[in-house]
Amino acid sequence: MNVGVLGTGMVGSAIASRLVALGHEVRMGSREAGNEKAREWVLGAGPNASEGAFADAAAFGELVFNCTAGEHSIAALEQAGAANLAGKVLVDVANVLDFSGGRPPAVGVGTKDSLGEQIQRAFPDAKVVKALNTMNCDVMVDPTKVPGEHDVFICGEDGDAKAQVAGVLREFGWPAEHIVDLGGISAARGTELYVALWLNLWGVVGSGRFNIALVR
Amino acid sequence: MNVGVLGTGMVGSAIASRLVALGHEVRMGSREAGNEKAREWVLGAGPNASEGAFADAAAFGELVFNCTAGEHSIAALEQAGAANLAGKVLVDVANVLDFSGGRPPAVGVGTKDSLGEQIQRAFPDAKVVKALNTMNCDVMVDPTKVPGEHDVFICGEDGDAKAQVAGVLREFGWPAEHIVDLGGISAARGTELYVALWLNLWGVVGSGRFNIALVR
Repeated sequence: MNVGVLGTGMVGSAIASRLVALGHEVRMGSREAGNEKAREWVLGAGPNASEGAFADAAAFGELVFNCTAGEHSIAALEQAGAANLAGKVLVDVANVLDFSGGRPPAVGVGTKDSLGEQIQRAFPDAKVVKALNTMNCDVMVDPTKVPGEHDVFICGEDGDAKAQVAGVLREFGWPAEHIVDLGGISAARGTELYVALWLNLWGVVGSGRFNIALVR
Repeated sequence: MNVGVLGTGMVGSAIASRLVALGHEVRMGSREAGNEKAREWVLGAGPNASEGAFADAAAFGELVFNCTAGEHSIAALEQAGAANLAGKVLVDVANVLDFSGGRPPAVGVGTKDSLGEQIQRAFPDAKVVKALNTMNCDVMVDPTKVPGEHDVFICGEDGDAKAQVAGVLREFGWPAEHIVDLGGISAARGTELYVALWLNLWGVVGSGRFNIALVR
């Protein structure tokens, strides 16, 4: 499958590399084609990897990942272009962090909205699925990095879109029974606000090599 | 030990009953002595149970639990009286929920503060420990209600106070290795904001008989 990955940071690189390793064709997008990090990534990732502007990557992808910093995601997606996202599944992995009060940052979208919802409202013709934003990127793409059973959360308005994303998550190694569908896109509030606890837990564990499990 | 439990709702009743069952003397506090729910609770709980106004319960307790609705906790604690809380461990179990936008409610304190911090600021001579606010009350007082391994989070500024609360949690049945100390009271932001995800998970599970585990 052709996949567009927006963002050249750790999250974008991890997801793009994993997708290439799984046999997908991946175009990494950034503000301008020729971005240094994106070119480096292409060199390392091989013939199924390419890079371009946000719009190039979004147009290329049948499926698009938003791996930009949450504070800039709406602007990046506007550059990607609503027409290049229309009808497509847009996996939103981003979190908005507010460092204005120092570290650890606060969650940046307040408690009555979420980035996932903001993106869905701004791009009504995209099928937004919030996923993977509750863990470190090396765990996102390889859940065995954390031993034992633990969970990834998805939510969104479109059932077929969520099923497609669940399929990609299974390719990443997530067992079907550990992909937890939280419902509509407003559940992104829960997974985005959880990042505050995740930051505390990072302090307890001393690294990002952890996750949470729903125990019932 | 003499324990004051502020609040006559499900959380207060569950904690007060469990403490009595463990052999503690418990006084349940409400806005006015003679509250109907508190009197019913006393009748059911036996000779080690008593009830009174918030101030009576706080004065009685060597340890005090805040189990009032988070929206009213500061007012309830003001009625309890700073002098009756001074020097004592105050376990804050409450969450502030905002139903103004319908159900599920939003977390009510925003992302840059928490009820735990507000209480510590308002009652600087109390030793506030945030605990137990991340699960249903029947799980709080008996973790075996959820099979398997899962965690309870504590945070606060005073290490001795946290150790005392951890001791009570062990009496409730929490294994020491599943009592996770998140650090200072500002970590209450994490556990209070997690409640948004907890509400989503309630929808997935169909009841409050679940918890999360930190997997590492």
